[in-house]
Amino acid sequence: MSISNVRQLIHNWLLAHRDAGTCLLQQLVRCPSKAGAEAAAQQLIATHLQSLQLEVEIWEPDGTQLAEHEYFYSPRQSFTGSPNIVAKMKGTGNGRSILLNGHIDVVPEGNVDDWRHDPFGGIKEEGKLYGRGASDMKGGTVSLLLALQAIKELGISLQGDVIFQSVIEEESGGAGTLAAIVKGYKADAALIPEPTNLRIFTKQQGSMWFRITVTGRAAHGGTRYEGVSAIEKSMLVVQGLQGLEHHRNSRITDPLYADNPIPVPINVGIIQGGNWPSSVPDTVVLEGRMGVAPYESLDDAKREMVEWIGEMAKHDAWLLEHPPKVEWFGARWIPGDVDPDHEFARVLRNEYYATVGHEPKVEASPWGTDGGLLTKLADTPCIVFGPGVTEAAHYPNEYIVLDDVFTAAEVVAMTLIQWCGMEVIQDETDTHDTYQPQD
Amino acid sequence: MSISNVRQLIHNWLLAHRDAGTCLLQQLVRCPSKAGAEAAAQQLIATHLQSLQLEVEIWEPDGTQLAEHEYFYSPRQSFTGSPNIVAKMKGTGNGRSILLNGHIDVVPEGNVDDWRHDPFGGIKEEGKLYGRGASDMKGGTVSLLLALQAIKELGISLQGDVIFQSVIEEESGGAGTLAAIVKGYKADAALIPEPTNLRIFTKQQGSMWFRITVTGRAAHGGTRYEGVSAIEKSMLVVQGLQGLEHHRNSRITDPLYADNPIPVPINVGIIQGGNWPSSVPDTVVLEGRMGVAPYESLDDAKREMVEWIGEMAKHDAWLLEHPPKVEWFGARWIPGDVDPDHEFARVLRNEYYATVGHEPKVEASPWGTDGGLLTKLADTPCIVFGPGVTEAAHYPNEYIVLDDVFTAAEVVAMTLIQWCGMEVIQDETDTHDTYQPQD
Repeated sequence: MSISNVRQLIHNWLLAHRDAGTCLLQQLVRCPSKAGAEAAAQQLIATHLQSLQLEVEIWEPDGTQLAEHEYFYSPRQSFTGSPNIVAKMKGTGNGRSILLNGHIDVVPEGNVDDWRHDPFGGIKEEGKLYGRGASDMKGGTVSLLLALQAIKELGISLQGDVIFQSVIEEESGGAGTLAAIVKGYKADAALIPEPTNLRIFTKQQGSMWFRITVTGRAAHGGTRYEGVSAIEKSMLVVQGLQGLEHHRNSRITDPLYADNPIPVPINVGIIQGGNWPSSVPDTVVLEGRMGVAPYESLDDAKREMVEWIGEMAKHDAWLLEHPPKVEWFGARWIPGDVDPDHEFARVLRNEYYATVGHEPKVEASPWGTDGGLLTKLADTPCIVFGPGVTEAAHYPNEYIVLDDVFTAAEVVAMTLIQWCGMEVIQDETDTHDTYQPQD
Repeated sequence: MSISNVRQLIHNWLLAHRDAGTCLLQQLVRCPSKAGAEAAAQQLIATHLQSLQLEVEIWEPDGTQLAEHEYFYSPRQSFTGSPNIVAKMKGTGNGRSILLNGHIDVVPEGNVDDWRHDPFGGIKEEGKLYGRGASDMKGGTVSLLLALQAIKELGISLQGDVIFQSVIEEESGGAGTLAAIVKGYKADAALIPEPTNLRIFTKQQGSMWFRITVTGRAAHGGTRYEGVSAIEKSMLVVQGLQGLEHHRNSRITDPLYADNPIPVPINVGIIQGGNWPSSVPDTVVLEGRMGVAPYESLDDAKREMVEWIGEMAKHDAWLLEHPPKVEWFGARWIPGDVDPDHEFARVLRNEYYATVGHEPKVEASPWGTDGGLLTKLADTPCIVFGPGVTEAAHYPNEYIVLDDVFTAAEVVAMTLIQWCGMEVIQDETDTHDTYQPQD
């Protein structure tokens, strides 16, 4: 049986399961799986996996144990009621293994009044499905599940192992994927279907959160010249950060960033200072996100910011005596860096081409994923490719284009077949033979 | 009996009542008369006034009635449990009347850990008395009470009426003084012993609070170039306000402001924007205090700021389409403006000189008081002069130099005598005669 026959079978299977796949996504979106409330959505996924006769492991990560890990970050210590799920589709042997990873947690819906539909309603409208998590990233997870189901139901046997993971905590720092890595799960390659809008991200921007505290001197507003405004001094710091961002980005020549005006941005997301309109504010706190390039370490990036702010402070008499304090807090995502010519990237590119009919866009992602942990900690080169609209993620009226979920499912199914190797489907004209991918 | 005999009697009386006066101030500081909790301190004052056989009126202002007044501002609607006190010392006739006004409310103590002593302990240390309200302005109120008591106990009869007021709500917008004005209290002159550190403020800076909302466009921090940072745009607004402040102050040539680097400052006291380190902030709110010159109207100053910000917005493509919104909220203090050569100012200056031995500093205050209401609404020219340290008011470790409380009491007592006119004290060598002040 030729690979084009297989592709046709997969394609037809997906066409036949369009309603069922849409329904599964709808059910998942209707489980508001915000941090701490992932159990119902995970149960749906576990049930689905079990119906495919896969071994399913379900466990609540041990926060106390994880807390000692260098790469652990979470705002919480206990994951009771927040299970991870791993299912394994054992290969027949001698094939390359793959790890498929999606996160089940979603960010909060925010102000419900900003939504046109119930944020957890899973409403379908003009080929789109709306709801928190539709793009980020239940749509991608459904693509994975459909790919696995198609392979199983079509009786396709893969040679390499497929490890499917539905993890918690990606939005809060990656403790779910870390817990799976600590259990020993790794593979020859990994795919995370975060919403890339079907672009292939072989590299991912890392990021970490910073907090900069700027000190002034309080005084009554009527004699403000007796004080030093921490707000005015914080403006110098914001300008300093703009200079640092420019400096860091001017070094980046990676062609994957060709279409990106600021490959590794520094975003000041929160400013807060002062507590009385009539007083000169003596403290301003800035909190933000520093992008980290794929080839950089978090520690190098931290050091560069601290030194830059220290240098900047020397040019202001007040800041020289009262240097801004830089801290790192909260979540951080390790950057990911896989060579765009890595064999797995080539398979994925080719299957995209074969399915969609044109070359995929290959870029570096402007945000972090759990892929950094997989690539750097689990030694599992991870590529990010999935359906869904980045711009809609984390905002009101998040949606996904349903067609893209099925396109991604087809690309993923064919990538599994090509990467892991396939025992040919038995039919009347074929002998049981090993199909070797040709690329 | 000569005026110098009277001065000597007052001076000696105050020396003899040093401990009693200090004790009264201590008792007042020990009543934490923050907004809503003024009753105990007011009761102390009422008891003291009644012991001097003065008519005392005590009433809780009617918030519903006041709310309709153009000059009303308070964060609360009801003043139940927050009484005003007025006492009247009726003159013998034909003299000029005077209104003495002190506020009993104190601002919150803030972080107790920043205080070396209990903020409501009234601790005495090296000639200073520490505590919230010591300078602002229970010390000044005690100076008034001592002056009245000295005059009464020395048997001095004044020709003009003296109206003493201990009011609530000065720190929150002047509703206590407004309530007394609405009741009809007015006089030929008024004195407020706010902490001027014994300087004479014939003019007072007015002020009002503004809120400026700056809008941006949200985006993920990893693609921050897809958004517009409200923090960066708010920096333009802060710079604009600095320009406006410069423009407004460059017009001021009043010699009373000769020693003041910024006669009418614009203070941005609070900044708040964004809610997630990884998101581009779409809103920043600035809150601050705009100083208003003595000769300016609040409306003119408001108009100038709105026009300035509107003009500034034209120079930025984003702000042009999304102009910052300027609002006025919360407290505002009407500026006060009394001619430094007003007869009452001359009497006060002369009595300061006679008591202290050198010319007083005459300035314009860098903050508002209830004096603006008295001068502009009650047609009662008000001068601000009192003991206490402006720089200590509203901050931890507020204190007052006790000597200054008694110096102010002496100046006030003699000013009452000279302004209101005195029936001479009967002694063996004098006939009952009217003493006319000579200036």
